Amino acid sequence: MSIAPQAPLGIPDEAQRQWEANYHLATQESGRLFLMAGDQKVEHLNDDFIGGQVASDDADPEHLFQIASEAPVGCFATQLGLIARYGRDYAKIPYLIKLNSKTHLIKTEQRDPVSLQWQSMTQVRDFIRYSGLRVVGVGYTIYPGSEWEAQMLQEAAQLVHDAHDLGLLAVIWAYPRGKAVHGREEDSHLIAGAAGLVSCLGADFAKVNPPLDNHGTMDAKLLGEVVAAAGRTQVICAGGRETTAPEFLHRLQEQLQLGHTAGCATGRNVHQRSLPDAVRFCNAVHAMVVKNEPMEKAITLLTGNSQ
Amino acid sequence: MSIAPQAPLGIPDEAQRQWEANYHLATQESGRLFLMAGDQKVEHLNDDFIGGQVASDDADPEHLFQIASEAPVGCFATQLGLIARYGRDYAKIPYLIKLNSKTHLIKTEQRDPVSLQWQSMTQVRDFIRYSGLRVVGVGYTIYPGSEWEAQMLQEAAQLVHDAHDLGLLAVIWAYPRGKAVHGREEDSHLIAGAAGLVSCLGADFAKVNPPLDNHGTMDAKLLGEVVAAAGRTQVICAGGRETTAPEFLHRLQEQLQLGHTAGCATGRNVHQRSLPDAVRFCNAVHAMVVKNEPMEKAITLLTGNSQ
Amino acid sequence: MSIAPQAPLGIPDEAQRQWEANYHLATQESGRLFLMAGDQKVEHLNDDFIGGQVASDDADPEHLFQIASEAPVGCFATQLGLIARYGRDYAKIPYLIKLNSKTHLIKTEQRDPVSLQWQSMTQVRDFIRYSGLRVVGVGYTIYPGSEWEAQMLQEAAQLVHDAHDLGLLAVIWAYPRGKAVHGREEDSHLIAGAAGLVSCLGADFAKVNPPLDNHGTMDAKLLGEVVAAAGRTQVICAGGRETTAPEFLHRLQEQLQLGHTAGCATGRNVHQRSLPDAVRFCNAVHAMVVKNEPMEKAITLLTGNSQ
Amino acid sequence: MSIAPQAPLGIPDEAQRQWEANYHLATQESGRLFLMAGDQKVEHLNDDFIGGQVASDDADPEHLFQIASEAPVGCFATQLGLIARYGRDYAKIPYLIKLNSKTHLIKTEQRDPVSLQWQSMTQVRDFIRYSGLRVVGVGYTIYPGSEWEAQMLQEAAQLVHDAHDLGLLAVIWAYPRGKAVHGREEDSHLIAGAAGLVSCLGADFAKVNPPLDNHGTMDAKLLGEVVAAAGRTQVICAGGRETTAPEFLHRLQEQLQLGHTAGCATGRNVHQRSLPDAVRFCNAVHAMVVKNEPMEKAITLLTGNSQ
Amino acid sequence: MSIAPQAPLGIPDEAQRQWEANYHLATQESGRLFLMAGDQKVEHLNDDFIGGQVASDDADPEHLFQIASEAPVGCFATQLGLIARYGRDYAKIPYLIKLNSKTHLIKTEQRDPVSLQWQSMTQVRDFIRYSGLRVVGVGYTIYPGSEWEAQMLQEAAQLVHDAHDLGLLAVIWAYPRGKAVHGREEDSHLIAGAAGLVSCLGADFAKVNPPLDNHGTMDAKLLGEVVAAAGRTQVICAGGRETTAPEFLHRLQEQLQLGHTAGCATGRNVHQRSLPDAVRFCNAVHAMVVKNEPMEKAITLLTGNSQ
Repeated sequence: MSIAPQAPLGIPDEAQRQWEANYHLATQESGRLFLMAGDQKVEHLNDDFIGGQVASDDADPEHLFQIASEAPVGCFATQLGLIARYGRDYAKIPYLIKLNSKTHLIKTEQRDPVSLQWQSMTQVRDFIRYSGLRVVGVGYTIYPGSEWEAQMLQEAAQLVHDAHDLGLLAVIWAYPRGKAVHGREEDSHLIAGAAGLVSCLGADFAKVNPPLDNHGTMDAKLLGEVVAAAGRTQVICAGGRETTAPEFLHRLQEQLQLGHTAGCATGRNVHQRSLPDAVRFCNAVHAMVVKNEPMEKAITLLTGNSQ
Repeated sequence: MSIAPQAPLGIPDEAQRQWEANYHLATQESGRLFLMAGDQKVEHLNDDFIGGQVASDDADPEHLFQIASEAPVGCFATQLGLIARYGRDYAKIPYLIKLNSKTHLIKTEQRDPVSLQWQSMTQVRDFIRYSGLRVVGVGYTIYPGSEWEAQMLQEAAQLVHDAHDLGLLAVIWAYPRGKAVHGREEDSHLIAGAAGLVSCLGADFAKVNPPLDNHGTMDAKLLGEVVAAAGRTQVICAGGRETTAPEFLHRLQEQLQLGHTAGCATGRNVHQRSLPDAVRFCNAVHAMVVKNEPMEKAITLLTGNSQ
Repeated sequence: MSIAPQAPLGIPDEAQRQWEANYHLATQESGRLFLMAGDQKVEHLNDDFIGGQVASDDADPEHLFQIASEAPVGCFATQLGLIARYGRDYAKIPYLIKLNSKTHLIKTEQRDPVSLQWQSMTQVRDFIRYSGLRVVGVGYTIYPGSEWEAQMLQEAAQLVHDAHDLGLLAVIWAYPRGKAVHGREEDSHLIAGAAGLVSCLGADFAKVNPPLDNHGTMDAKLLGEVVAAAGRTQVICAGGRETTAPEFLHRLQEQLQLGHTAGCATGRNVHQRSLPDAVRFCNAVHAMVVKNEPMEKAITLLTGNSQ
Repeated sequence: MSIAPQAPLGIPDEAQRQWEANYHLATQESGRLFLMAGDQKVEHLNDDFIGGQVASDDADPEHLFQIASEAPVGCFATQLGLIARYGRDYAKIPYLIKLNSKTHLIKTEQRDPVSLQWQSMTQVRDFIRYSGLRVVGVGYTIYPGSEWEAQMLQEAAQLVHDAHDLGLLAVIWAYPRGKAVHGREEDSHLIAGAAGLVSCLGADFAKVNPPLDNHGTMDAKLLGEVVAAAGRTQVICAGGRETTAPEFLHRLQEQLQLGHTAGCATGRNVHQRSLPDAVRFCNAVHAMVVKNEPMEKAITLLTGNSQ
Repeated sequence: MSIAPQAPLGIPDEAQRQWEANYHLATQESGRLFLMAGDQKVEHLNDDFIGGQVASDDADPEHLFQIASEAPVGCFATQLGLIARYGRDYAKIPYLIKLNSKTHLIKTEQRDPVSLQWQSMTQVRDFIRYSGLRVVGVGYTIYPGSEWEAQMLQEAAQLVHDAHDLGLLAVIWAYPRGKAVHGREEDSHLIAGAAGLVSCLGADFAKVNPPLDNHGTMDAKLLGEVVAAAGRTQVICAGGRETTAPEFLHRLQEQLQLGHTAGCATGRNVHQRSLPDAVRFCNAVHAMVVKNEPMEKAITLLTGNSQ
């Protein structure tokens, strides 16, 4: 079980106390973060929300809020605009505002990716003040290796500082991407570099893709370099494409125990299920991430009552 | 009949009350929006205003204001500069300020589209204060898939927040465009994605093109995915190219009843008619959108007295 | 004779009164504008000021001020820096500050044109306050169809609003240009589109090139579409290349009577003449534009005493 | 001998008085400017400061300050950072802060030149206030014909206005450059255009290259068009590559007497000499520019005692 | 032994006193700077921190802080975000905040390098105020010869001024790079130019690569031109790739004695060693740089007790 890091330096005392409160809220007093990622309506447009095995209730964005409200997630990360529309009816969810997002329409072959900050930190501050919601932090995606890297690192560094100054957590989604790194996006050494970069940006958590071995298979042991490189910035792995619940939990167990990650982020594997299934799935993830229960215990929650 | 959504969160109480008043004004207490789109003098230059079947009075921009003044539209969307010139004589119209516009001179083959915000929100605020006009909201066009997408999403997100902070509605015109989506601009799944993106921007209405089936024919049933993806952000379809009034009403009926859209936006189909015809046409649209009357009833209004 | 439009909406009462005063001053109480264009020292560098039939006194920029001071022009449009240098000695001239300018060195084949705002509106305001000069308005050139169109429309829209807020007139030079419109720059339908665009920007006057027919000859009747499209934004034609005075007046008569333009802008045809000839030429233009005299009367002024 | 122009309009009275004081200081009460150009450590990196006939003391930047301190220059133009480092020991020098600079590493064939403003005018104001140095003005280089012309003209126009508002002189280095003008950089007609452009920017002095005739030889008579085009903005020629002192003075005589320039700017021809030689050289230039002495008299100073 | 330069001009008295205190702290009262460079976690991602001869404790970023805390370095340069995370536990280290950083993923063949400022100087000021850490200065990398040179010079000039205004030292990493200088990056004449450029930016120290002779071997005598060109801006050489400790000290001796540099910067040669070895290595460097001891004496420290 990770030990909660201290608040970052360089901010007023009151902001430090607020940061600590948000840290405990988001990690559910465990020092580990179960982040429900819900920014795909921009990142993947409607691809993740319809068709195939996707539960029909996922077609409606309210499904995300229903899950986040009923399941024991540490925080639900999505865009401010969506929170502004549903937050009044889902006021107990701990929110993390995802501050930049782009569509997946332009492929790297056409142009390296760029994603810019949507709302200013002043707008975020006002939103929190007026909404009264429990906003625990902000998120931002960087693409190391993109030709627009400099712009994104500049925005990221500034928003991490401003987030801390408001007592908010800062989570950086760090995905190497662009012509310069094509085919190496999931190389563990490169991901370790990205995680170290995030620690230099001062973020509290780095959300990275789980590294693959030479055969294209996730190898949690490769996370060792990543977690070490990130230092006191904690590492969580993105959940990635949909898979079976037991397989997901198995991979999560390896990430936590072999990779020593500090939680996990999952989106599609949660919201593509029906509400009861999604809640049960979250219960299982919560058991492992927050309660530090063994996988075998967690698996039993997949079939039980969702409450 | 749609239920009026609540004001967005994250703004002062007074702004919420103002937003609600503007919402009821724009939707004529019906929860459905009949938006008269009048930004074509920039978007299409003079192409829509002369020649062919276009009524000769459409050559003069005042024609737009005359229609909007005499017909029961929910709001008339056009550029601030034009409103500043005619608003004094047409003070009762509920206006929606279209904040970005571009010409159609540069084709996607030459360069992906980009359209930037014309007036700052501070200028908009001052304009409303000093003009005393009934400005119910602002509009902005995004082109998901354009190489300039990041710049437009950033501007859009900021203006939606600032609009709400002023108690104004925010309507996003969302048109997938650019080399990356060439030939797929009217695909229902892509349009659904764009509508979901708009909901993440926090806008109140998404104005989209009606989706086409594989034969290039509008299929209102395909709107189901679109309306679902938009969640509490309401969807209205652009009217598109000029057609006969009965055909327009037929398509509108399908959009409303099969697609469950929350109104419609129409420009050329209104202003290319003579003033009396345009008013009659609007009466018919109003009957269906705002009064929820059957198409058959609406059609009778096309030939009656225009008052 | 045009009727003076009302001040634009959306500005304080005092600014409206100032705008009206400036409008009457610039149009010499006639509602029609005789604009002496003097921004060519940047736009054409020294090409217009030396050689061929150009009077030798045109080599010195003071020649422009001498003409504008002695001739009955409605306003003299040039760059702020030049006014700052000569204004003290020519304090009675009504000035229009041309806020952007570019050289003609880069051709469209190399790169689409872009021209950015030189002074901020705060600097303009301070210049007016401290200089005490009679500044009636500001000017700005847009190039619809250029790849940099979005940047110029954004600057133009903001400065029109700010100009009105200071009680100043806003005149937009609107010239379709760029690879996308190559060979069509003087097409009447395109020019009409540009004039309509200017009306949406909220400018008071649109300065356009006179349209050519299929044989490359100016056809004033084609201005009908242009003037109609501009609505309450008044249209004036650029004078274009130097020609004989009677030919100029003949073309002006057609523009005013067949095209219903609201004045004219002329630069080279004025300043390439000696001071006495230039003043006589301006007297003739003034007679037609401001006094609404017939061309035959105006022609007699070309040979009389210049006072 | 030129007559001192009046302060530019559009600035507070106190700024006018300060401008006049700076003008008299920089022109040494003569109305003509002897500007010692010392921005080459960025513009040419170390190429001008070592090797060949360059005096060994030129390797140290302090050499520039020693010359400017001991020789009767009107002002010494260099970057703010260098002045901040040496100014305390050379407090009597009238300084002109060169606000933009670029290296010569990228050739026009690779990319058109761009040089951006280093310090903001607020930083310049604070620097003057806190340093107590005698800063008479600011300098900025523009490259008419470059693809980045618009950005540089915008910065130049704003800083000229702000400089005047602080009572500072504004000197524009105007060098046509870029693919569009390749091979014509020293054409007199183009240089005249650039000088006229500078007058429209409102600068007090235009620093241009001396024009060449068709054989590539400087022809001072060609300066007539240049000086005329600049109007009340005074023209000084850049000194250009190192040459013998008598040859330099001969060219200077032609520029002053045939070209009617208002002084000169010289850098390499000064600082590449040893301190005593440089001072003697400056004495000779000073005699001709400021004292209006004949060349023959000036030449005698080249061999005399340097005091 | 260098003489401590005076504080730069143009800042308030209190800032001058603060600058002097920081100068003495960073140079350990010696006028020479031993800078421990720790920005590689972004610049080189994880490449420098794992594999080959790299000590295993270097995988954790805390290793950098442990060394900087126990070894007699003049300052430890790294990103603000990392300092914010570890500074509370390593409060005695004199820090230098490296304000821009980029990854090495994009090679010059793909695109010229650009690295932008991460935190604003206002954020830096607040960080210092609230953290209470001993921050002695800021650092910034420029790439003369890059197509983005203008943007970086602008940022650098502004931050040097603002750093001095806060009483902080300014250190510029100056590395010629880009297609225009490919293959000449370590040419002594070009490096001298870069050092002179840094002096014009007003920085206190220029960090350059040691120049190579025609055979690709470091030749400290070539530093003479570099140090001369930098004037009162002091020059330190980057340590470069890892080498043996005696070889490093030998090169350092040559740089200090033949090249007359004012200290050194070293990163990989320090942190790739185990903590005791790194401290011993730093002791040796400190002896030569700060204590001006002969190399032979320093070498004895490599094998002694690390305290």
